[in-house]
Amino acid sequence: MKILEERILKEGKALSDSVLKVDSFINHQVDPMLMDEMGKDFAEHFKDRNITKVLTIESSGIAPALTTAAHLGVPMIILKKQTSKILSGDVYQTRITSFTKGTSYELTLYKSYISKEDNVLLIDDFLANGEAAMGGSRLIEEAGAHLAGIGILIEKSFQRGRKRLLDAGYDVYSLARIAKLAEGVVEFVDDIEE
Amino acid sequence: MKILEERILKEGKALSDSVLKVDSFINHQVDPMLMDEMGKDFAEHFKDRNITKVLTIESSGIAPALTTAAHLGVPMIILKKQTSKILSGDVYQTRITSFTKGTSYELTLYKSYISKEDNVLLIDDFLANGEAAMGGSRLIEEAGAHLAGIGILIEKSFQRGRKRLLDAGYDVYSLARIAKLAEGVVEFVDDIEE
Repeated sequence: MKILEERILKEGKALSDSVLKVDSFINHQVDPMLMDEMGKDFAEHFKDRNITKVLTIESSGIAPALTTAAHLGVPMIILKKQTSKILSGDVYQTRITSFTKGTSYELTLYKSYISKEDNVLLIDDFLANGEAAMGGSRLIEEAGAHLAGIGILIEKSFQRGRKRLLDAGYDVYSLARIAKLAEGVVEFVDDIEE
Repeated sequence: MKILEERILKEGKALSDSVLKVDSFINHQVDPMLMDEMGKDFAEHFKDRNITKVLTIESSGIAPALTTAAHLGVPMIILKKQTSKILSGDVYQTRITSFTKGTSYELTLYKSYISKEDNVLLIDDFLANGEAAMGGSRLIEEAGAHLAGIGILIEKSFQRGRKRLLDAGYDVYSLARIAKLAEGVVEFVDDIEE
């Protein structure tokens, strides 16, 4: 997606060969117009999949998931990061370990808000190792629902997340695919393939 | 706001004299159309305040803050809940204790995204004791910016938050004001005053 790639080049900060900061328009300060454009793009891409729910993971996924859900005209569901297991039968939970941040949490979905009839679109801000997206997919499958697609704002294509999701049979659509990061350097997959 | 009050009566769950669950349309499952209507209402109410930034607290405030920022045409900033102090000069931080949840965290705002020239609108989902909103106001004032207004989705008017914020000189606008909660019972301030 051209406008996202341009914004990353203009405002993103490549700090190392694996860290890209986009705090000024996605993660801390958020540009609502860009979020709307990205939501529109996801909605357009997945419009024939009969999506019934948009799922995301708190908290950086919420803004693009909300605009996507608005353009599709369906509810959005926020998967919560709980520090510990909830001991009741009301939830689906799965353990996620973030390699980037060195933290673990229980990704949580209340059973009331998903059913076997749901066609789910999962939206997240970053795809790196794919831990969070794979965890989301486990919750959706445990609920008997169908994961119809995964929409990602920024994919670190040099890490293994995309391949893991494709190998698991999921449809992955990323708005910006980063082939290479280094201090002060961002190269997109398109730059190389074209 | 009529449509929010109706939705609370229809789908909200009053569990006790202090707990109201709105998980099916605000906190866990989110209705994007309702969020857009609420954002439009906040933008309309605060349209003459020359708002330059909408601030909110992760993660339940993000959806209404995003739609408000979109209608005002300004950036949105997410105040982060950090578990520990960040030892660098890049951030403003203040300790928040949630009486409802029995937890504490460091509310965090990166200095890069706020300046003395900013007129800030603070948006949050719930107002009870006012701990989070008072914390947000401390960060905004520490930055030398002006807190031009506070927009709340659901105010528990029987708790002390509203009075604390008014006493501190802030303009508080709540879309639904709850006068009384009891198991299965929700009464709005309007019901009583009218």
